[in-house]
Amino acid sequence: MSESEEIMNSEFDFESIHDKRTDELTSLLDSRDMKGLKRRMEEMNEFDVAEFLTEIGDKRMPMVFRLLSKETAAEVFANFEAPEQEQIINSITDSELGNIIEELYVDDAVDMMEELPANVVKRVMRTATPETRNLINQYLRFPENSAGSIMTSEFVDLKKYMSVKESFARIRRIGEDKETIYVCFVISADRKLEGIVTVKDLLLADDDVIIEDLMDRDVIFASTTEDQESVSEKFSDYDLMALPVVDREGRLVGIVTVDDIIDVMEQETTEDFEKMAGMMPSDKPYSRTSAFEMWKNRIPWLMFLMLSATFTSMILTSFEDMLAVLPGLVAFIPMLMGTGGNSGAQASTAVIRSLSLGDVEPGDALRVMWKEGRVAFLCGLSLAVVNFAKMIFVDGMALHNGNITVAVAATVSLSIVFIVIFAKVVGSSLPILAEKLGVDPAVMANPLISTVTDAVSLLIYIYMAKIILHI
Amino acid sequence: MSESEEIMNSEFDFESIHDKRTDELTSLLDSRDMKGLKRRMEEMNEFDVAEFLTEIGDKRMPMVFRLLSKETAAEVFANFEAPEQEQIINSITDSELGNIIEELYVDDAVDMMEELPANVVKRVMRTATPETRNLINQYLRFPENSAGSIMTSEFVDLKKYMSVKESFARIRRIGEDKETIYVCFVISADRKLEGIVTVKDLLLADDDVIIEDLMDRDVIFASTTEDQESVSEKFSDYDLMALPVVDREGRLVGIVTVDDIIDVMEQETTEDFEKMAGMMPSDKPYSRTSAFEMWKNRIPWLMFLMLSATFTSMILTSFEDMLAVLPGLVAFIPMLMGTGGNSGAQASTAVIRSLSLGDVEPGDALRVMWKEGRVAFLCGLSLAVVNFAKMIFVDGMALHNGNITVAVAATVSLSIVFIVIFAKVVGSSLPILAEKLGVDPAVMANPLISTVTDAVSLLIYIYMAKIILHI
Repeated sequence: MSESEEIMNSEFDFESIHDKRTDELTSLLDSRDMKGLKRRMEEMNEFDVAEFLTEIGDKRMPMVFRLLSKETAAEVFANFEAPEQEQIINSITDSELGNIIEELYVDDAVDMMEELPANVVKRVMRTATPETRNLINQYLRFPENSAGSIMTSEFVDLKKYMSVKESFARIRRIGEDKETIYVCFVISADRKLEGIVTVKDLLLADDDVIIEDLMDRDVIFASTTEDQESVSEKFSDYDLMALPVVDREGRLVGIVTVDDIIDVMEQETTEDFEKMAGMMPSDKPYSRTSAFEMWKNRIPWLMFLMLSATFTSMILTSFEDMLAVLPGLVAFIPMLMGTGGNSGAQASTAVIRSLSLGDVEPGDALRVMWKEGRVAFLCGLSLAVVNFAKMIFVDGMALHNGNITVAVAATVSLSIVFIVIFAKVVGSSLPILAEKLGVDPAVMANPLISTVTDAVSLLIYIYMAKIILHI
Repeated sequence: MSESEEIMNSEFDFESIHDKRTDELTSLLDSRDMKGLKRRMEEMNEFDVAEFLTEIGDKRMPMVFRLLSKETAAEVFANFEAPEQEQIINSITDSELGNIIEELYVDDAVDMMEELPANVVKRVMRTATPETRNLINQYLRFPENSAGSIMTSEFVDLKKYMSVKESFARIRRIGEDKETIYVCFVISADRKLEGIVTVKDLLLADDDVIIEDLMDRDVIFASTTEDQESVSEKFSDYDLMALPVVDREGRLVGIVTVDDIIDVMEQETTEDFEKMAGMMPSDKPYSRTSAFEMWKNRIPWLMFLMLSATFTSMILTSFEDMLAVLPGLVAFIPMLMGTGGNSGAQASTAVIRSLSLGDVEPGDALRVMWKEGRVAFLCGLSLAVVNFAKMIFVDGMALHNGNITVAVAATVSLSIVFIVIFAKVVGSSLPILAEKLGVDPAVMANPLISTVTDAVSLLIYIYMAKIILHI
């Protein structure tokens, strides 16, 4: 029974197989069986090797890393996060570093450069060949988060006059180091993108068919300056494996592969979450961010929102005498503000997410507001009815709160209806307005909406009290 | 100059090429050039055809759909959303429907079944062949959002004793209808998964190499009942194109492809956003959800949170007399509650996102709380200092608010420090606690956290006032 059969049969849970493997590596390391360790690592997935190396900690890590073969070393290196990459770079020779840089895909090299401190970047650039250095420099010039900044140059290009047989020969010759060989890009003599052909098309065609007759001319492509969010939308709409990136003249300059798009999607989602909770987006994972950096990301919005609450304070202050007439009224202010904030957050979250999925577009503003208005009316009415009953029967009768009269309950309940309608209509329209103005709609989320609704909720409540309670 | 060259050269913007193409289709349809329309649609990407058909609206849509060839029709059908699928099903014959069902990938058929009304599902099942019907039924039995429910059965399987040449022959023979041919799955006689081999491996190897010597035994796989979120983590960690799904005995029962994972990621993200804003997750896009359905998704949390605010009201009521002594104090309650809510939301959002990315694990609870505690201290202190200065110089001096004394400013400012610390520590620990209890951490987000912090913020403020102002 071979080793793999044993693994396969003993336990069919991926996690336990996985943990067993890590334990194996640790015991090989502890018993200083470097040969065995090297052999096991070479067989494993590079992501797992990178995880193992990250976990064994500072001292022994670079030593174990240097056991790896040239190709594996580069692949494992690409799977490291910035701190481990830096640690490795600082503990290997220039020639080892040069080897790794040459083996890396350009997009991985560019990713790394964007994270490393300047002095380390200098050393990396010095050890790279002039061609690689030029390529990296060229890619680094594209705006951050553009298609140009996430693309890679390792693709298979074909010419339309090639036969299927010639194409396979070319794929076999140059395919080894390409990020994908399954989608090949057909380009003209002046490198303009003319079509794409997949290895599936090639495999299912006869050897002497010409690429021109096989290629798909209806190519989905991106331009170098296009935002990565729009690139990832294309992947999701068209179920792509790879997307060609062209310059303004239509020349093919790189490709984006689907595995990079998964990282982009995670990064964009994290950014949206951060913005929507009033934080500055950070591209570092939580566990790697220091308390001081977190403070820097969080304090601007907290400060702005705290100072904005001054308006609410001023409104409260100016109506203090009126509210003092009926002391029961103040007790409901937090509930009203909370309900307004929650209602607005629901609407803004739904709209922000739909904008980013392309389901709602700026032109839909009126339709969205009309829908939110109806939803708000239904929500406000249900809340008002329940609140009215609760105030009369629970607060008034059960808890013997003498301040609660039918008129007070009506004031609070009617306020709810108007507050919810205001919150939902504003909460849904502010993100669309932001999109129209070219601002990221995600900043129009909960924190900002609730600060606006807090002030308006209070005004609605006060005017409702004036009308119903005549105070 | 060919048509494609003209498109490529005239304007290098994907969107304008795209719009031009849709206009072309519309004018072909308006001039009733059905032959031309059919030809253009067959050349286009299925997603674009589906979009075009969705846009032309009710009456003519099924008629135009029926122009498509059998293969294209199935692919376009898979790209429709549920309402269009239902419309088509209701306007084609049983035999046309049967053809589409047979052409669909099983995962697409299962997706569709989960969305369609029961009577339509019945008709679809009746027109399918017994084999397809059994397969669909079998897949429908897997729990929703499990690997089993998103996998498909159309994969290429190889045997380890096959040569590269034999493998290519098999891929050519059965590959046409497979969801991917680029990753092939090596199985034993009893269908147990033994390894994987990619077409790249095959292309770069000699014809007579045996699969056993080429295959990768270190297979990343999922089990049928595994949650789709964990499946998508594997895709992101290991940069996979396809993932094999095995049953409890290790038999290969299906595969998940990367394009499905992109949809899963979007769906999971949307669900997280919805839960975090206090909405019931809905799998319908915003534009397709009626106001009444939106009310049903939104009212439960609004109602619960409104009623929970009763605690805050009760606290306010019971300290009403005390707060009346110093009328200035009430004005700062909304600001304090808002700051607490925003601080807590930042912490809970950061932790919920990190939990879902696997960057923070339940075991990190103490480390997270310690970090959030330090961040909160820094944030609280900065806010307190600014607030103190603002209250003294702006509220007190500039706005001549006589209620603001140094002691009052100190009370409010010191409250901020404690409120922010409480909010951040609770905001970061509740999601981890939820994860430990097996509850989705996303529900421990903003709305719930702010309801908790509202009540506690008020208590902190009141006790601070008692200590500093002796009231």
